Amino acid sequence: MGEKGKKILVGVDEGEESGYALSWCLQNLLSHSNSEDTLILLFAKTPLPIYSAIDSTGYLFSQNIVATMDTYANQVADAVMQKASTLCSTFNHQAKVETMVEHGDPRDVICQVAERLKVDLLVLGSHGYGLIKRAFLGSVSQHCAQQVKCPVLIVKKPTN
Amino acid sequence: MGEKGKKILVGVDEGEESGYALSWCLQNLLSHSNSEDTLILLFAKTPLPIYSAIDSTGYLFSQNIVATMDTYANQVADAVMQKASTLCSTFNHQAKVETMVEHGDPRDVICQVAERLKVDLLVLGSHGYGLIKRAFLGSVSQHCAQQVKCPVLIVKKPTN
Repeated sequence: MGEKGKKILVGVDEGEESGYALSWCLQNLLSHSNSEDTLILLFAKTPLPIYSAIDSTGYLFSQNIVATMDTYANQVADAVMQKASTLCSTFNHQAKVETMVEHGDPRDVICQVAERLKVDLLVLGSHGYGLIKRAFLGSVSQHCAQQVKCPVLIVKKPTN
Repeated sequence: MGEKGKKILVGVDEGEESGYALSWCLQNLLSHSNSEDTLILLFAKTPLPIYSAIDSTGYLFSQNIVATMDTYANQVADAVMQKASTLCSTFNHQAKVETMVEHGDPRDVICQVAERLKVDLLVLGSHGYGLIKRAFLGSVSQHCAQQVKCPVLIVKKPTN
């Protein structure tokens, strides 16, 4: 980035698309960054749906299962952030790297954080959040590109 | 851009949005560019619609009017390119600047050129091609973001 103190927000998740988008950003946008730039890695932890506590027969899931699901969600968040942070350290840049884990629908979380932190650029993979989630949630990148006011960079992972 | 010989394609038109997108690109992406980077300014000249030669009463427009419309379209293309080139010269960068004027629907033209030239990044204003044209054409940036394989940067002009 050309100016001092730019904030770049990157949406990260467990998919390969977001890893590729982060790599592209590090290689192409941050290779000349100065030490005042900040790269913010954001992971949205989708809340357990309300119906997850009740199975199809109407019985309550045991507390054990709910706790296990929550633990799993935290482990995913930790793993994603660990992987993203490691990726950041493999590229030559001077930007400060921060991580954020927020609860909520990725579409809402990303837009809210982008506005709240007044970021200069939002970077997203084009097919984030997996095939199944995308079917329910719609395209995260498309939604965010329409909603946020800052420039949005959508990076697709080459299919070859 | 971090690597040598990057190609950045910017869709330009007569709207303020595309001018802002180009400025943002010059200021934030190209301020550290090296002399092997290429910035390609692309203007899509929408072809005269077939019905433009016949008015609502079924009479043929005179050749004069058709010629006048064509001249006007060329003047718009020249003016847009002149303005964009001037903008490029006001920013400090080393990239080579090329201009392209192609005929066709901007959505198709931009996607085709992006693929043909194998550009590394496509930059678009979010509301290109004016209010009226957008109503007919749909969102150019949204269409291109879905279609092209390369990373797409959509820059919105702040409303304040």
